[in-house]
Amino acid sequence: MCLPGTVETVREQTKSEQAPRVTRRTVLLGGVGAAMAAALPASALAVRPAKGRFADLTHVFTEGFPVFTGDSPARETLFSIPTAGFYSQKWTFGEHSGTHMDAPGHFTLGGRLSPEITPQELIVPIVVIDITTRAASNADAVVTVDDLRSFERGHGRIPDGALVAMNSGWAGKVGDPLAFKGGASFPNYHFPGFGPEAAMWLVQERDATAIGVDTMSLDPGNSSTFPVHVNFLRTDRYGLENLNNLDKIPPRGALAYVGLIPWEEGSGGPCRVIANW
Amino acid sequence: MCLPGTVETVREQTKSEQAPRVTRRTVLLGGVGAAMAAALPASALAVRPAKGRFADLTHVFTEGFPVFTGDSPARETLFSIPTAGFYSQKWTFGEHSGTHMDAPGHFTLGGRLSPEITPQELIVPIVVIDITTRAASNADAVVTVDDLRSFERGHGRIPDGALVAMNSGWAGKVGDPLAFKGGASFPNYHFPGFGPEAAMWLVQERDATAIGVDTMSLDPGNSSTFPVHVNFLRTDRYGLENLNNLDKIPPRGALAYVGLIPWEEGSGGPCRVIANW
Repeated sequence: MCLPGTVETVREQTKSEQAPRVTRRTVLLGGVGAAMAAALPASALAVRPAKGRFADLTHVFTEGFPVFTGDSPARETLFSIPTAGFYSQKWTFGEHSGTHMDAPGHFTLGGRLSPEITPQELIVPIVVIDITTRAASNADAVVTVDDLRSFERGHGRIPDGALVAMNSGWAGKVGDPLAFKGGASFPNYHFPGFGPEAAMWLVQERDATAIGVDTMSLDPGNSSTFPVHVNFLRTDRYGLENLNNLDKIPPRGALAYVGLIPWEEGSGGPCRVIANW
Repeated sequence: MCLPGTVETVREQTKSEQAPRVTRRTVLLGGVGAAMAAALPASALAVRPAKGRFADLTHVFTEGFPVFTGDSPARETLFSIPTAGFYSQKWTFGEHSGTHMDAPGHFTLGGRLSPEITPQELIVPIVVIDITTRAASNADAVVTVDDLRSFERGHGRIPDGALVAMNSGWAGKVGDPLAFKGGASFPNYHFPGFGPEAAMWLVQERDATAIGVDTMSLDPGNSSTFPVHVNFLRTDRYGLENLNNLDKIPPRGALAYVGLIPWEEGSGGPCRVIANW
């Protein structure tokens, strides 16, 4: 499908597909490949320093992203610039694909769904519990209460209301689904997750807003009873799965922005997670 | 499809679907409907004040959300708690649905796509240009350079690098697609947008990071040549469409968090936009 007249009018507007494109880079570097860039005042050419440092804790949402069960995301081109004058895609996927949230209602009847998670819960301190060494030799490793206490001895108290994320080193495996899952299909998975005692300690002792993992489940892959999903989500808190780049942020001191799309009746779903410190 | 054994094990975990659920509200209010809540220390019961004020500039991403062309988003239940032990949905939609981004590559051959938009561009000052009065009597109203100059006389200079958003009063019409679109289909639409001169003034004079609208197109509905899409996106900047609640934030002084999902090869796509001030 194409909007009547769009191709012709857009082509007329752009004059030629070969015309130099004004990029932010050319603008910022003072490139004058196009008349408009030449017209930019000098003041607009200055690079503005970002406030603090940023890390993207999100995987690119790809076709074929490994999922716990069901079909991986799929995409197709709906419109292309040469034929329609503009470009866009169509997506089909389950909510638990890519870097995503498990809302309370994912495992709790009557639990809150995606649109009910408030902005205040989506902008929170993040701390990172590093279990990469243990996980490297044991794919079934879990975050324990001892790990949390050890973290606090080294880095100070986990702030109340934080997003507490496990870094197991698994994010780098995402391009190899079999390695990422540690098995072909449920119930033969092997990857790290939260132990239920640690998850509930964070509820009871630190009033955590959320927990997060760099694997595809809050519970470790070898769990068949999902006690963290059942018990943690039941406390009206949320979880994040398939986080990325947790080794790029400080263990404590960053703020996480969890850009959950408010999917109607959503059980969670894809979100953009960015850390700033 | 269901994970083998999941229903039974999750049911065993939850004991009874009628068991009282521990909500953050009951926890925060000191409710003791469940043993775990009773075990929470007093320090965890204190409500933590949010830092500053928040407004959600995002519409709920609904089935049937009005789109410029093509099919509206669709969803179906994939798994339900009574039958599978957990709940999730499947979604199918075009990238230009709901509150979403137009990336440079939406109209520009070779332009940047969703994963290439940097965190620094996604956390930016937001200013709101209010044209509600004019738009109420003219659905074809556009943001003009005069509007921008008038804004600056009243509220001070538009900061460099900002997201400059039009509030036309259209967000409240989203539940009535015909009213929101102002016509059944392209090219018969009537709704406000940016005038091309104002959009390019923001590039040249204020190095805007992005523009945003509370309607479904950066260009007004009666445009058939899309000069804002063509020329503004060509400068390697992005646009936001279908913003919500722009009347709930100050004209100047808020920070916007644009949680774009990094859709692979995306022409933009659904994002969560939250303002904080």
